[in-house]
Amino acid sequence: MQQKVLITDCADAPGLITKITGVCYQHGLNIIKNSEFVDNAQGRFFMRTELEGAFDETQFLADIDEVLPPQRHCKLVEKGVKRIVVMVTKEAHCLGDLLMKAYYGGLDVEITAIVGNYDTLKPLADKFDIPFYYVSHDGLTRHDHEQQVLEIIASHQPDYLVLAKYMRVLTPEFVEQYPNRIINIHHSFLPAFIGAAPYRQAWERGVKIIGATAHFVNNCLDEGPIIKQDVIPVDHSYSAEELAKCGRDVEKSVLSKALQLVMQEDVIVYGNKTVVF
Amino acid sequence: MQQKVLITDCADAPGLITKITGVCYQHGLNIIKNSEFVDNAQGRFFMRTELEGAFDETQFLADIDEVLPPQRHCKLVEKGVKRIVVMVTKEAHCLGDLLMKAYYGGLDVEITAIVGNYDTLKPLADKFDIPFYYVSHDGLTRHDHEQQVLEIIASHQPDYLVLAKYMRVLTPEFVEQYPNRIINIHHSFLPAFIGAAPYRQAWERGVKIIGATAHFVNNCLDEGPIIKQDVIPVDHSYSAEELAKCGRDVEKSVLSKALQLVMQEDVIVYGNKTVVF
Amino acid sequence: MQQKVLITDCADAPGLITKITGVCYQHGLNIIKNSEFVDNAQGRFFMRTELEGAFDETQFLADIDEVLPPQRHCKLVEKGVKRIVVMVTKEAHCLGDLLMKAYYGGLDVEITAIVGNYDTLKPLADKFDIPFYYVSHDGLTRHDHEQQVLEIIASHQPDYLVLAKYMRVLTPEFVEQYPNRIINIHHSFLPAFIGAAPYRQAWERGVKIIGATAHFVNNCLDEGPIIKQDVIPVDHSYSAEELAKCGRDVEKSVLSKALQLVMQEDVIVYGNKTVVF
Amino acid sequence: MQQKVLITDCADAPGLITKITGVCYQHGLNIIKNSEFVDNAQGRFFMRTELEGAFDETQFLADIDEVLPPQRHCKLVEKGVKRIVVMVTKEAHCLGDLLMKAYYGGLDVEITAIVGNYDTLKPLADKFDIPFYYVSHDGLTRHDHEQQVLEIIASHQPDYLVLAKYMRVLTPEFVEQYPNRIINIHHSFLPAFIGAAPYRQAWERGVKIIGATAHFVNNCLDEGPIIKQDVIPVDHSYSAEELAKCGRDVEKSVLSKALQLVMQEDVIVYGNKTVVF
Repeated sequence: MQQKVLITDCADAPGLITKITGVCYQHGLNIIKNSEFVDNAQGRFFMRTELEGAFDETQFLADIDEVLPPQRHCKLVEKGVKRIVVMVTKEAHCLGDLLMKAYYGGLDVEITAIVGNYDTLKPLADKFDIPFYYVSHDGLTRHDHEQQVLEIIASHQPDYLVLAKYMRVLTPEFVEQYPNRIINIHHSFLPAFIGAAPYRQAWERGVKIIGATAHFVNNCLDEGPIIKQDVIPVDHSYSAEELAKCGRDVEKSVLSKALQLVMQEDVIVYGNKTVVF
Repeated sequence: MQQKVLITDCADAPGLITKITGVCYQHGLNIIKNSEFVDNAQGRFFMRTELEGAFDETQFLADIDEVLPPQRHCKLVEKGVKRIVVMVTKEAHCLGDLLMKAYYGGLDVEITAIVGNYDTLKPLADKFDIPFYYVSHDGLTRHDHEQQVLEIIASHQPDYLVLAKYMRVLTPEFVEQYPNRIINIHHSFLPAFIGAAPYRQAWERGVKIIGATAHFVNNCLDEGPIIKQDVIPVDHSYSAEELAKCGRDVEKSVLSKALQLVMQEDVIVYGNKTVVF
Repeated sequence: MQQKVLITDCADAPGLITKITGVCYQHGLNIIKNSEFVDNAQGRFFMRTELEGAFDETQFLADIDEVLPPQRHCKLVEKGVKRIVVMVTKEAHCLGDLLMKAYYGGLDVEITAIVGNYDTLKPLADKFDIPFYYVSHDGLTRHDHEQQVLEIIASHQPDYLVLAKYMRVLTPEFVEQYPNRIINIHHSFLPAFIGAAPYRQAWERGVKIIGATAHFVNNCLDEGPIIKQDVIPVDHSYSAEELAKCGRDVEKSVLSKALQLVMQEDVIVYGNKTVVF
Repeated sequence: MQQKVLITDCADAPGLITKITGVCYQHGLNIIKNSEFVDNAQGRFFMRTELEGAFDETQFLADIDEVLPPQRHCKLVEKGVKRIVVMVTKEAHCLGDLLMKAYYGGLDVEITAIVGNYDTLKPLADKFDIPFYYVSHDGLTRHDHEQQVLEIIASHQPDYLVLAKYMRVLTPEFVEQYPNRIINIHHSFLPAFIGAAPYRQAWERGVKIIGATAHFVNNCLDEGPIIKQDVIPVDHSYSAEELAKCGRDVEKSVLSKALQLVMQEDVIVYGNKTVVF
């Protein structure tokens, strides 16, 4: 008995739910959970259907394809553990949280490798017997550094790349290798405090709440479809350093919640936005 | 062009979504929004479908009925403004919030009457030209008092009764007149602090969070299906009175959110629980 | 027996708490509550002391003054109800909430007048018998319009001006009449979505949380010391209009919490920030 | 230069702040941060003062003692890293979080030993080179089991004992060995769902929010002074198992926040409550 998730994304049209679920029914599939969304501004239909049964997937997808209008995307995926490569610099909190949750089953990821532009976090990776690749950017052009990193990543064939406080900006050439498959944690409540030193900016502005944003990476820095955001209250007594320290807790919590949504196949990207079912 | 919400609730069975949405499609209806839930523990299927189109409602319901398994409930309702009667004692915050939101369109209710066992809040009702019925319980048996109240309510034919800090316990005889149609705001995060003086109990226990619970009233005091709950952080410096003062903000906010969910036909009651789509 | 709040703000120096509370002790005053904060970055000391007793306030302030280092501010104020004038345009939710809370005692303000550049909200003001001044900006220069408004405000001698969704930008000349005494509610989680149509901006960016910010108004639009911020979670299914509707609940809640802090004398402004005790 | 925290707790009396800070001033100490609280119901004064300077601590405490009224407690402590022993059963999430945060400096604890009544979590302890003591309760009386555990704990001389999902009830004899020094994480928003299987109880009650509570352990099960509580929203679609899974995130987050407060000397216990500065 297979358990699959059907993700459909197409121009809106009458009868789509009936037609799609009708194909499921004909194939003897049990619908465990179903979610739909229509973006009226764009006339676009999104559906996520959890299915259970014994079925011919190729035939099923062909039948689904037949009932859909043009400009359709349609895929059959599995929710649950996926392979990720994590990229880091020096800060341990996000990587540590991912390693620990992966270890005890609190997060459906398999961390197949860690790549760092510093070797600071190698001892942490070692504790969990995850290969750590130290690729210093010292003395390398940006292009050469990224090429080395890309080769390592490619050798692990991850489903997703996770930037767990990786503090270098990726080039468009790098990003386009993994479209909608790179997830970043940004240390602010985007779009507030875009750019460098967001906690210092927050301190100077005297905000009463700080936050973090997990998003897919596209070619615009600090842009890209937002998956998850969260915030915590702060007050005048926090220094910029204390804001940063508090922020770390939100960062790791938001990153891990975003990853879990992605692993569960709850997230559909379209344009610069996400549908999160 | 009608806009309706179809609420379905039946034993779970294969193909229900296809069959129900199929009937919608045959009647030429556009599905604006669709939500399903299966309670696996009870094998029960729930669905809420927002529909748009020009159609014969009686025929439509008959056709829906035909495709459903036994023990089904099925109704076609309208989301939006419904008639409520509000029952109060002396505290103004919940009633005031309902009156104001109803006035400026922040809440989809039409308050057709207010019934108080004190006349404290009559001046507030007068500001908004809502009939206020003062029915003192002084010198009356509980039965006689409730009879007077029930007669007033009946004359207004409300869709729902709202207990906005009405501080008397209703008898089962009263409650059964309006099954799943009486909504109460309870001044605690149920099931914590059941019974009298919850803020004093909370203060004595030294809790760090207080809350409020909006629920349908059934025949067990402080029981009944929960619609909405919310909380706020507090600390050691709050006296019992200050907890109560803070609590008022949560109470009115939770009550009004719960009512909006009910008015939008987002809430299905089953057993002692709710499905809130 | 008087109850007063002593607000002190001066260069940091050793022994300030001892010296200040020592003066209180000498005057036979009971300290109900005491809060201090030192901004180490600026070497500045802030203290708020709730006092109770029978005392000569002039002598007391002179004695306090004597123990403080140079560049000091020091005032004796009363927490509790203060006079405000509210400025509005067309939206009712913030004004309505203030009126209702002022009415039932949920907020320590006395609304002495309401000024609108439209007359939309006059009926609402009338319900609570608050004078409503309709000052259309039609056909007037910005300067002339503001002069008319300033005259009305001056005639009411308010402690604070509250911009409850007043949709016109005030000139520096207006603002400097009421330094740190004008409180605005901004419909976004500042500094995100500065400028026009923040909810549309939020929708286009696909954020997962929206917020509101109450701040003192200074001469920079959307700047000024932040008093209070709050947020609510949203998702992909919200249209820009639905974001705005949800946002209204946060706006009124944040505005009223900020006002209560100011009325309780919990807020000290310094530079572009606030200390909120 | 020493950095210390002075914790004072005594009957309320006039002039206490002046007298206490006066002693600090005489000893040439800089007050970094100061917090006071008076419990008016009990007429009790609490103060926490962060001090900096070079001073004779014994003389300082003697001088403080002299200015305080009877029935006083007064101690000079250091905020920051303290020694803890962690007790566990089988669940990894709380222990894992503590280990990871202790490792990267996100929590000011030194975990000196872990004691488990199962050996399930030994491999996790090994990763961080923390001694793990497996003390099965199989075939032992409760008294004998606890004696073995107490001996191990005593050999590590911890400042605090942390019950990180330790699923056995401690006897009063055990608890009285470490008065106000045992911290437990309870898997519900106390006092809701006291007793066994709180997530199943929550599911049956149909609550819309679940929570967790960190508290000091005293001799009443699920009682004891509350340090920290937090909650997360849930809905009808969660099974009891899913509630438990979500709950784990709140549990570990609340436990670690509570510990940090205790390590920072922000918590004073009195009676069955805490003051958390």
